[in-house]
Amino acid sequence: MNLSNHPAFVAYAITCVALCCNLIFLWAYSGAVRSKAESTPNPEDASRFSSRLADVDPPEIARVLRAHANAQATIVPFLALGLVYVLAGGPPGAAAWYFTVFTVARWLHSWAYLGSRQPLRTVCFVVAAISLLALVLHVLWLLIAAG
Amino acid sequence: MNLSNHPAFVAYAITCVALCCNLIFLWAYSGAVRSKAESTPNPEDASRFSSRLADVDPPEIARVLRAHANAQATIVPFLALGLVYVLAGGPPGAAAWYFTVFTVARWLHSWAYLGSRQPLRTVCFVVAAISLLALVLHVLWLLIAAG
Amino acid sequence: MNLSNHPAFVAYAITCVALCCNLIFLWAYSGAVRSKAESTPNPEDASRFSSRLADVDPPEIARVLRAHANAQATIVPFLALGLVYVLAGGPPGAAAWYFTVFTVARWLHSWAYLGSRQPLRTVCFVVAAISLLALVLHVLWLLIAAG
Repeated sequence: MNLSNHPAFVAYAITCVALCCNLIFLWAYSGAVRSKAESTPNPEDASRFSSRLADVDPPEIARVLRAHANAQATIVPFLALGLVYVLAGGPPGAAAWYFTVFTVARWLHSWAYLGSRQPLRTVCFVVAAISLLALVLHVLWLLIAAG
Repeated sequence: MNLSNHPAFVAYAITCVALCCNLIFLWAYSGAVRSKAESTPNPEDASRFSSRLADVDPPEIARVLRAHANAQATIVPFLALGLVYVLAGGPPGAAAWYFTVFTVARWLHSWAYLGSRQPLRTVCFVVAAISLLALVLHVLWLLIAAG
Repeated sequence: MNLSNHPAFVAYAITCVALCCNLIFLWAYSGAVRSKAESTPNPEDASRFSSRLADVDPPEIARVLRAHANAQATIVPFLALGLVYVLAGGPPGAAAWYFTVFTVARWLHSWAYLGSRQPLRTVCFVVAAISLLALVLHVLWLLIAAG
């Protein structure tokens, strides 16, 4: 079992690393911002890290968590469908397009969200959504063509 | 590498498309409801889209986000375990049952959640949870039988 | 298509079951705590289950949901990258280390979070994060070595 010389799989593997790093970065960054804001919802952290206890996160933490939620909501379906595409024998050329456009758009979306950059954030969301839709349609096409 | 003539994989691929569309629909719908409610947690959107700035989402947006969180919490483990089932050589007949029941129950759950339909929402959650549990047990059984 | 005699895949399959059970347990437990706290954000549940309607979850429910969010944010990338590792022909020996350390650390993290146990919670988060980082680097190494 070794697909590491299979072009579409290699494209998927690189994409998976890049998108998982996006998710991991946003989650770790929410922790860093929380630490700097000295605000926590956990009583056991308030005493330990001399943070203020707050049921509602301050705006700068809430923003990172919204960026993470947005990333998770789009990246997880993309990774699931991307693997189905590869295992269904999808052509590497189209994969490279979908994967590259989506990954670049999602990283830019995170950067735009964290920096309050509009309309860039909405543009990136729409571009990534179009890549995701194209992937859905191509997977359906692969299934119909093989059926 | 082409599993598109492998019955259990085809069942998984169709399921993956249907469940990812469920997740994508709920996320897109939360955006549509937000747009109609003209409420946003982002200052940069309030000025741009003439929306009110609100730290806490109004009830109609919060409901869609809860439906999405519920979908994500159940669909993501199902898709991970479903692929393991297929790659472990799980029989296509049982797969068709687990996958169909889960997918129908989850789409109905979303419809019931968005429309405040009880007890349908709870019934769908339980039916989907039973399919998920059956899949977990079948994957364990495949591993034990092969070991 | 049957990888159930492939050691790295078997390690992944067991890990996938253990981590999905962690996610499913936390989600189900949030429901159990909600039921005991008799608090719900849904008007249709308040009338049906004689619960109080509350826009903001009480602290004991919010804690379980934070533990779940933390689990989801780390487990989902780990499962995606773990499968890429296996399909890229990653050695089973290293897989066993990454998978075991991450899975034990994440289950302990959930236990520590639910019971307000510090510094155990932070230690488990960091140990799991190191396993995740090691997996990312190994996947990159496999891709470079094959390229």
